[in-house]
Amino acid sequence: MIPLELSPDRLFPADPGARSVARTLYQAVRDLPIVSPHGHTDPSWYANDTPFEDPAALFIVPDHYVYRMLYSQGVPLDALGVPPRDGTRGIDNDPRAIWRIFAQHYPLFRGTPTRLWLDHAFHTVFGIDERLTEESADRYYDRIAACLRDESYRPRALFERFDIEVIATTESPLDPLAHHRAIRESGWGGRVVTAYRPDPVVDPHFENFAGNVAKLGEITGEDTATWRGYLSAHRARRAYFKDMGATSTDHGHPTARSENLDPAQCQQLLGRALAGTIDANDAERFRAQMLTEMARMSVDDGLVMQIHPGSYRNHNGAIFERYGRDKGADIPMRTDYVHALKPLLDVVGNERNLTIILFTLDETTYARELAPLAGHYPVLRLGPPWWFHDSFQGMLRFLEQAIETAGFANTVGFNDDTRAFMSIPARHDVWRRVVCRFLATSVVEHRLDEDEAMDLAPALSRDLAKRAYKL
Amino acid sequence: MIPLELSPDRLFPADPGARSVARTLYQAVRDLPIVSPHGHTDPSWYANDTPFEDPAALFIVPDHYVYRMLYSQGVPLDALGVPPRDGTRGIDNDPRAIWRIFAQHYPLFRGTPTRLWLDHAFHTVFGIDERLTEESADRYYDRIAACLRDESYRPRALFERFDIEVIATTESPLDPLAHHRAIRESGWGGRVVTAYRPDPVVDPHFENFAGNVAKLGEITGEDTATWRGYLSAHRARRAYFKDMGATSTDHGHPTARSENLDPAQCQQLLGRALAGTIDANDAERFRAQMLTEMARMSVDDGLVMQIHPGSYRNHNGAIFERYGRDKGADIPMRTDYVHALKPLLDVVGNERNLTIILFTLDETTYARELAPLAGHYPVLRLGPPWWFHDSFQGMLRFLEQAIETAGFANTVGFNDDTRAFMSIPARHDVWRRVVCRFLATSVVEHRLDEDEAMDLAPALSRDLAKRAYKL
Amino acid sequence: MIPLELSPDRLFPADPGARSVARTLYQAVRDLPIVSPHGHTDPSWYANDTPFEDPAALFIVPDHYVYRMLYSQGVPLDALGVPPRDGTRGIDNDPRAIWRIFAQHYPLFRGTPTRLWLDHAFHTVFGIDERLTEESADRYYDRIAACLRDESYRPRALFERFDIEVIATTESPLDPLAHHRAIRESGWGGRVVTAYRPDPVVDPHFENFAGNVAKLGEITGEDTATWRGYLSAHRARRAYFKDMGATSTDHGHPTARSENLDPAQCQQLLGRALAGTIDANDAERFRAQMLTEMARMSVDDGLVMQIHPGSYRNHNGAIFERYGRDKGADIPMRTDYVHALKPLLDVVGNERNLTIILFTLDETTYARELAPLAGHYPVLRLGPPWWFHDSFQGMLRFLEQAIETAGFANTVGFNDDTRAFMSIPARHDVWRRVVCRFLATSVVEHRLDEDEAMDLAPALSRDLAKRAYKL
Repeated sequence: MIPLELSPDRLFPADPGARSVARTLYQAVRDLPIVSPHGHTDPSWYANDTPFEDPAALFIVPDHYVYRMLYSQGVPLDALGVPPRDGTRGIDNDPRAIWRIFAQHYPLFRGTPTRLWLDHAFHTVFGIDERLTEESADRYYDRIAACLRDESYRPRALFERFDIEVIATTESPLDPLAHHRAIRESGWGGRVVTAYRPDPVVDPHFENFAGNVAKLGEITGEDTATWRGYLSAHRARRAYFKDMGATSTDHGHPTARSENLDPAQCQQLLGRALAGTIDANDAERFRAQMLTEMARMSVDDGLVMQIHPGSYRNHNGAIFERYGRDKGADIPMRTDYVHALKPLLDVVGNERNLTIILFTLDETTYARELAPLAGHYPVLRLGPPWWFHDSFQGMLRFLEQAIETAGFANTVGFNDDTRAFMSIPARHDVWRRVVCRFLATSVVEHRLDEDEAMDLAPALSRDLAKRAYKL
Repeated sequence: MIPLELSPDRLFPADPGARSVARTLYQAVRDLPIVSPHGHTDPSWYANDTPFEDPAALFIVPDHYVYRMLYSQGVPLDALGVPPRDGTRGIDNDPRAIWRIFAQHYPLFRGTPTRLWLDHAFHTVFGIDERLTEESADRYYDRIAACLRDESYRPRALFERFDIEVIATTESPLDPLAHHRAIRESGWGGRVVTAYRPDPVVDPHFENFAGNVAKLGEITGEDTATWRGYLSAHRARRAYFKDMGATSTDHGHPTARSENLDPAQCQQLLGRALAGTIDANDAERFRAQMLTEMARMSVDDGLVMQIHPGSYRNHNGAIFERYGRDKGADIPMRTDYVHALKPLLDVVGNERNLTIILFTLDETTYARELAPLAGHYPVLRLGPPWWFHDSFQGMLRFLEQAIETAGFANTVGFNDDTRAFMSIPARHDVWRRVVCRFLATSVVEHRLDEDEAMDLAPALSRDLAKRAYKL
Repeated sequence: MIPLELSPDRLFPADPGARSVARTLYQAVRDLPIVSPHGHTDPSWYANDTPFEDPAALFIVPDHYVYRMLYSQGVPLDALGVPPRDGTRGIDNDPRAIWRIFAQHYPLFRGTPTRLWLDHAFHTVFGIDERLTEESADRYYDRIAACLRDESYRPRALFERFDIEVIATTESPLDPLAHHRAIRESGWGGRVVTAYRPDPVVDPHFENFAGNVAKLGEITGEDTATWRGYLSAHRARRAYFKDMGATSTDHGHPTARSENLDPAQCQQLLGRALAGTIDANDAERFRAQMLTEMARMSVDDGLVMQIHPGSYRNHNGAIFERYGRDKGADIPMRTDYVHALKPLLDVVGNERNLTIILFTLDETTYARELAPLAGHYPVLRLGPPWWFHDSFQGMLRFLEQAIETAGFANTVGFNDDTRAFMSIPARHDVWRRVVCRFLATSVVEHRLDEDEAMDLAPALSRDLAKRAYKL
């Protein structure tokens, strides 16, 4: 048996002086409640509070961070229980068999954030104190399976145990938000809010776009074939989402391009999009225009706007064909913000009642584009390191490259952006540790006074996020 | 009262061994005179030696590093005394009121280079030993205001106190250089030279380009509507600048693009530029051609050429409209050097009597493009980290990314590039400290011998700049 | 005399705790044999085992890493013995004179990897314990010259002394591989394999492309003017190379672009390429198509595919004109992989019997593109830091930016990629030291357990390369 220990000093600097300051800072933020202003957990968990199914269904089958790594080393997705689109299943779907394959390949995760998150969950949530190996796989499985049968491992209990102050999920405008309504009506004290993510009705290349826009019209009673009615329908759904707790919207376009076209051009683009005759460039223009429209609406309704650009979705055609979206084959691209956001910023850049939070998968933009933009425009703030960069090294690069120009106040602390419920405490813990490390190093190198670090640590851990997202 | 102290070890590595070497190196360079081969201070200060007006006029109103940060957090530029173009003023322009707003927002600068520079100036120039806060704002104001009334705080006295060996300012070809003449004729010993910055007459999109080129013709007696006369006029003004002490030219184009067109094409472009009928691409070609022409002239007259590309100027349309240029809304862009400089390098790349100093706002080019180019072409040298990257982390990235391929000898030490006179000693001090840190770390990790570090520290602090700029 | 010492702790972290772990790890890998799966040493050395000529011919004249730096500081290539294409020689070509110029300029290499490699070779191979200076130049020359006359400094003896387990060279499809045959037939135990590098017959812009393709036809008996015959000729030569030990191919295109065109289009492109009427874009399409064809053939014959894109070759026109290729004037460019490799990956991305090793000169792609691609596609692996980035800082950046997403298992350890035989042990030693440093830091910061680091150090030093390259 190889022990699994979580050092109290993990991720802190090796230098004893800096480590000591990091410890002091961390003491002050370790137990702060979790504010999770953006993520993809399933609201039905909190609405229904049904137990999680089994260890594989909890940790492997739905987590593309996990199975992409095994796939890259030759393990078929079928063997990991990833369901094909057509419902067929190539192999026996035994969760214990899946778990064993996972355990056997666990060394692949050495040096990755996934390993940090998993070990944290195994140890702190399930009380396991040996490392996951081929040999320990069954003991792991049995232990986790047993826990999941216990009341204290139901979603709401874990929500409370994780000390989540508030969590946001992300829904389509077509979603009736029944789970959010059920949570609200259940009398349970946990705060779960939604966020407005309109991809299915703003991206002409989304599966069934025209049908989605038609459904948007039905739901809102607007004629969404007209530009005016289409915008009104958005306004109506945003109001509904806001009513159901939403404080933000979220926009995941391939690029950060924005436009400011006249209504006649918009009507033409919408028409072609609905007719399915729009070409790639015009589809991009339509999405670009919608960024600006969403920003305008945010000025009116106060919803905080998030922009998550730069992912080449479903890069692996064969995998998309067989398994569908979000299967670990989304690859970051170079992203421009300076030219792309100019049309939008010309319209709303100097507003006082608007916050736009920018994310990136292209780290070269931290110091070159994003920090200078956020360090000037009053509407802009910088989101934390995202996706592949939500990692120890990624966080350090973000802090080292963005803060000198943007300052801390133009950032928004952390969000976990995850669908992996078990990883939430771990992800926030990694962020808090890296923040404390960064601040501690700044203190011992006399780039920051210690009282200032003591002030910034909780701000970065919780308060900036609450304020920026109006939570 | 919160103390303001400047640790003698600031910016040095936390590791005691490395810190100790850094201290030793720093002792050898701390008191070297300042060579400031490129910057934007106002020559009238040195010519007239009139006192600086008040604390706000000294530290806030003209410094876009300072007010962009407050603006990004919602403070209107009017409230900071930034003058609108049309001369109207929205609010009372009381310098103490401005100072108080600044003091109240001083925490925004935590972790930024501006904070390092300001604290350095407050402490070493004005002898202040408490931190700037809302509470201490008035004491700061009174102290600085009192100092500014004293003889010893006049520009020339500070120039001497700062131990500036030589400083370069930057002027348009249309500038008569009256202040430089006055300085020279005054008998004062301070060395202030100019530099040739021809944007107003080489950028077809510069305000009043045609008028500027006409004026250039008047000044030089050349027919600047002809390509030949236009070039002759440049030669004449360069000669005049050189006579007034200039050793360098400076070129701030949007990109690093160069061209090598034939004279007939050049005449056409000039004609369209003067007629105001030139399109964006041809304006870019004209600027590109002028880079090559300037390089050719440098081969003849020996002026060192600086290229500062890659800034999207005046990105915020509304701010430009109301306040004009240089208001903290210039945003870096991705910049290519490999293809862009090829036409110019094909003409002059292998010259022996030419130095071209390349700067960048796109740090991705340090290791990928700039160091390999400077590590091959005899005419190329690398300028220090520029603008947003003139910072602790920015300097480390430059040294870590450029030196391994370019070597130290293909760099040119430091230049402050500032219009903020008070920040000059602080900026050079930050550079010297980071250089000593970098060298010290190299020594303790056995990548460099200590005697070599002792040789390189003063070279990087002063000598490389003197030599490269022929000062 | 200035001593030349190689600290046993060089490149290890300054922090005593981390350094101690690094030492332990390094003990376990220091003496592992060298696996050199990709490089450019001359097979005639191993075939003929004739002595190296003189110190200048060994260290300076053929090494563009060395003379580019002197050239960048004004030393003419003629003075360094670099032979002009036309056979004329401007100056006396005395090796001792060349050596003295080199020695005089040795300080230029401070802080560069070249300095680390040279000092390592001087000290460990030639037993020199003083630094190379102008003063010590002749003693160096005499010592090295004397050694080279000794049996124990012949190529095969050094090969054995360096403990090279296997080394790959790189040859054109037109090469008869006579040296490889001679090595094999000589009975000598050293393992020297070739690699298939088809630039002369796949790049329409290669000197004498049509002649090369015709010669390919002669050698194989195929009609290489037809697309079908041209592909068959490749297959035949690959089989021959494989027979002569090759386990890999290597592709050095300007970009990573791939295509998947139909045979009729391919025939057209081939026709125009052979006729010399192909334009730049179609030449790029032809190369792009050939990447995909090579990948297809690798699925069949099992040769591991290497892609080395992103170098602007022969950037300095005048130098190319006078001296030809590979003269230190190759400059890296921005490189895209996400869109460029999509056509190829659509064809072979999910194969089980294929390994494609990706290299880059654009470090921004490590975290953004390459690690996510390799962390998903089963065919992809990441090559080590290449060329300018084969350096202390470059290796750290690679490990810090790629591993968190790709994991260690999707990398292939190290290859030296050098034509400088003397530098091979030094280069592998730098890699091993940096790996141990990286792992040690991960251990003391509790991001990796020590037993895992002990497992990874030899994998990264030798085993991953052996496995990935099937050696």
